[in-house]
Amino acid sequence: MGILIKNILEIYSGVEPEPLKNQYLIIEDDKIKEISAMDSCPTKKDFSEVIDAEGKILLPGLINTHTHTAMTLMRGYADDMPLQKWLQTKIWPFEAKLKGDDIYWGTALGVLEMLKGGTTAFADMYFAMDRAAEVVDKSGIRAVLAEGLIEANDGDTGLKNSLDFALEYNNSAEGRITTMLAPHAPYTCSRSYLEKITKLAADNNLAVHIHLSETKKEVNDFMSDHSLSPIKFLAEFDFFKNHILAAHVVHPEPGDLEILKKNRVNIAHNPISNAKLGSGIAPIADYLAADINVSIGTDGVSSNNNLDLITEARMAAYLQKVNNYDPSLIDTQQLLEMLTINGAKTLNLAQIGMIKEGKKADLILVDTQNNTFSYPHHNNLSNLFYAADSRIIDTVIINGKIIVYGGEIKTLDQEKIYYQAEKSAKRIADNLK
Amino acid sequence: MGILIKNILEIYSGVEPEPLKNQYLIIEDDKIKEISAMDSCPTKKDFSEVIDAEGKILLPGLINTHTHTAMTLMRGYADDMPLQKWLQTKIWPFEAKLKGDDIYWGTALGVLEMLKGGTTAFADMYFAMDRAAEVVDKSGIRAVLAEGLIEANDGDTGLKNSLDFALEYNNSAEGRITTMLAPHAPYTCSRSYLEKITKLAADNNLAVHIHLSETKKEVNDFMSDHSLSPIKFLAEFDFFKNHILAAHVVHPEPGDLEILKKNRVNIAHNPISNAKLGSGIAPIADYLAADINVSIGTDGVSSNNNLDLITEARMAAYLQKVNNYDPSLIDTQQLLEMLTINGAKTLNLAQIGMIKEGKKADLILVDTQNNTFSYPHHNNLSNLFYAADSRIIDTVIINGKIIVYGGEIKTLDQEKIYYQAEKSAKRIADNLK
Repeated sequence: MGILIKNILEIYSGVEPEPLKNQYLIIEDDKIKEISAMDSCPTKKDFSEVIDAEGKILLPGLINTHTHTAMTLMRGYADDMPLQKWLQTKIWPFEAKLKGDDIYWGTALGVLEMLKGGTTAFADMYFAMDRAAEVVDKSGIRAVLAEGLIEANDGDTGLKNSLDFALEYNNSAEGRITTMLAPHAPYTCSRSYLEKITKLAADNNLAVHIHLSETKKEVNDFMSDHSLSPIKFLAEFDFFKNHILAAHVVHPEPGDLEILKKNRVNIAHNPISNAKLGSGIAPIADYLAADINVSIGTDGVSSNNNLDLITEARMAAYLQKVNNYDPSLIDTQQLLEMLTINGAKTLNLAQIGMIKEGKKADLILVDTQNNTFSYPHHNNLSNLFYAADSRIIDTVIINGKIIVYGGEIKTLDQEKIYYQAEKSAKRIADNLK
Repeated sequence: MGILIKNILEIYSGVEPEPLKNQYLIIEDDKIKEISAMDSCPTKKDFSEVIDAEGKILLPGLINTHTHTAMTLMRGYADDMPLQKWLQTKIWPFEAKLKGDDIYWGTALGVLEMLKGGTTAFADMYFAMDRAAEVVDKSGIRAVLAEGLIEANDGDTGLKNSLDFALEYNNSAEGRITTMLAPHAPYTCSRSYLEKITKLAADNNLAVHIHLSETKKEVNDFMSDHSLSPIKFLAEFDFFKNHILAAHVVHPEPGDLEILKKNRVNIAHNPISNAKLGSGIAPIADYLAADINVSIGTDGVSSNNNLDLITEARMAAYLQKVNNYDPSLIDTQQLLEMLTINGAKTLNLAQIGMIKEGKKADLILVDTQNNTFSYPHHNNLSNLFYAADSRIIDTVIINGKIIVYGGEIKTLDQEKIYYQAEKSAKRIADNLK
């Protein structure tokens, strides 16, 4: 029983510094059981599935550490607008019309795109997360779900509901769903509200997902009001004692980096959203040099406008190079780490993020034969991260199950998702005309 | 006779401000003969080809205004290195080993990628351009070819050869090939050499393709040597009197923008190469605001690492937005213009770049049905430029001929190109080990 993947051209395990060549890998139940060179590959036919990976490279599944998946319904709804106008006249009115079924189909469209693009786990912060959890359960993806909390809208009732959700769904869907608490940001939640959340997280052993220092204006306004940066403000109470997933962190003030480092804050870097919204370039080369854990998120599709982690990671490299006039900043090995092991750490999931015996089998096979940008083969990892995009993802395995094979999704009805997501998006857009 | 394209979902012509819906278009010989609404679509069966474009949008072919196509052989050969080390230990040694057949197969791999990605015309600056011309002829693409001239290497003999090439090949391949002269850059060609080229260009009615103000160091060094910026240096003699294709122009000095504007210099903006090499961000929002013609180039694959104009254009938008903290800078209409009509102007080709009766039939059909990032359909142009990539290019027509259909290339032997390009690249890389 189990799955045999044979003739693997190269394995980029995240453990060894160099790729392992001509390997096989055996999956048993939800775990990686064995990895070795092809010359010792078992020949007995006692596997439930045998995948011939000739011409394909194997990587840990890619991890998207910050998104709002249901916002995939807003792809292309509004672009190129000043931030406040975009939020007030487009995004918030659209969100106000979202019903539970819209969340379901928007999340389904996003999860479909993520799976076909090699994403095996993601962190989501939105609302009606029980509907998102249905999609995660059905699709086979792994997710860390949290109900976003804006104090003025959600208050104590919202906090109680989000805690109920977190406790009910933690470790559901064969363990593929874990949960966090998610105060939206320091500028939308008061200190007392954040202290309540901090205590609830600690008492219930939950991690906390938050937006932090995304725009310069937000940081400046916060400093005017509080006379200290959002990061220093959070450090004043026990906020950072919990496991923290901090999205963006584009604008640290002097002294903030040391606080992030000391408290082992995990950063979800969203380079495309930060660029498209004109927010700025997070200093991730500095964070990485300081040994702060940096992973990659796409943010919502409304400010991206896709969920492709390959092009997202590439953007992270480009922005550091150009912003520092230094082409040597961020290399392909760092891109691999940010997308895999660093993402796993950010999601507080010790069992994924690398290819190693005993770890969960969250794996992707990448084609190196059937696209122009795979030629020539000087360096398959460079071709993946700098030349290709999600189209060269061939096979996606999560928790030991084959979810995408030959580029085709096995667990979701793609045409139905297209139809229903279109219907939801059109109903809301028409309603707002 | 001729080609009928019917049921076109939308035409983004580059002429009208809004897309035309539910149209047909007739091609006769190499030109667009007729565009009109489907209710008057001819029903007679006297076309040599009928393309049903249901669910597809029609755009002018995309134009890549600066590349070194044969460098596609160097994809992934060296990344993330300091610029001088990258050039001296990797790029130049590799280039020194290139033979005519390598140029042919490297160019073929690049042209194959460009065609499948919706590029219908490109400007190339490299060497052994007669071999590149063979590929252009055979593939059906349109190209503006020029032999690059570095004075110390090429001297007067090189200049004579490049002029001979330009005169022999201008208007060849049914007019799809035009030519330019191409001094590499002001810092690699002396004033007297550039003056010679300027005169030869004027005498022979040839345009001039040049690299200009690409890196800060290059501009600073030039100013130390000449006490004026490269742009002011060129303005001191008749250089700008010819039609100029200036690649990069990342670092204008005070006063340079006015010179570019006054002389109607055409800029090829290469945002990814400029980012990946740490060169900087060209101020194209300022150029466009000053009514300077800005188009898009990919530069060579060695610093990109692909030839996808859709993701390249998107990068142009991202960089302006983030560098100026203004998400409203550069919208999808400007991306369309930079990729089409502005590209046509840059290439000095008045007959392409828009969809209009009487213009050359250089057209692309883009699928809006079969990929996750085409859903939902709030805005097809936004989905193309911000969410998708070259994979949604369905059909490519150049000079009235169908070159790509259903994503498949009709004019080139793809497998042979993969094989031969790989062989060339491997021979050189192995030789340099």
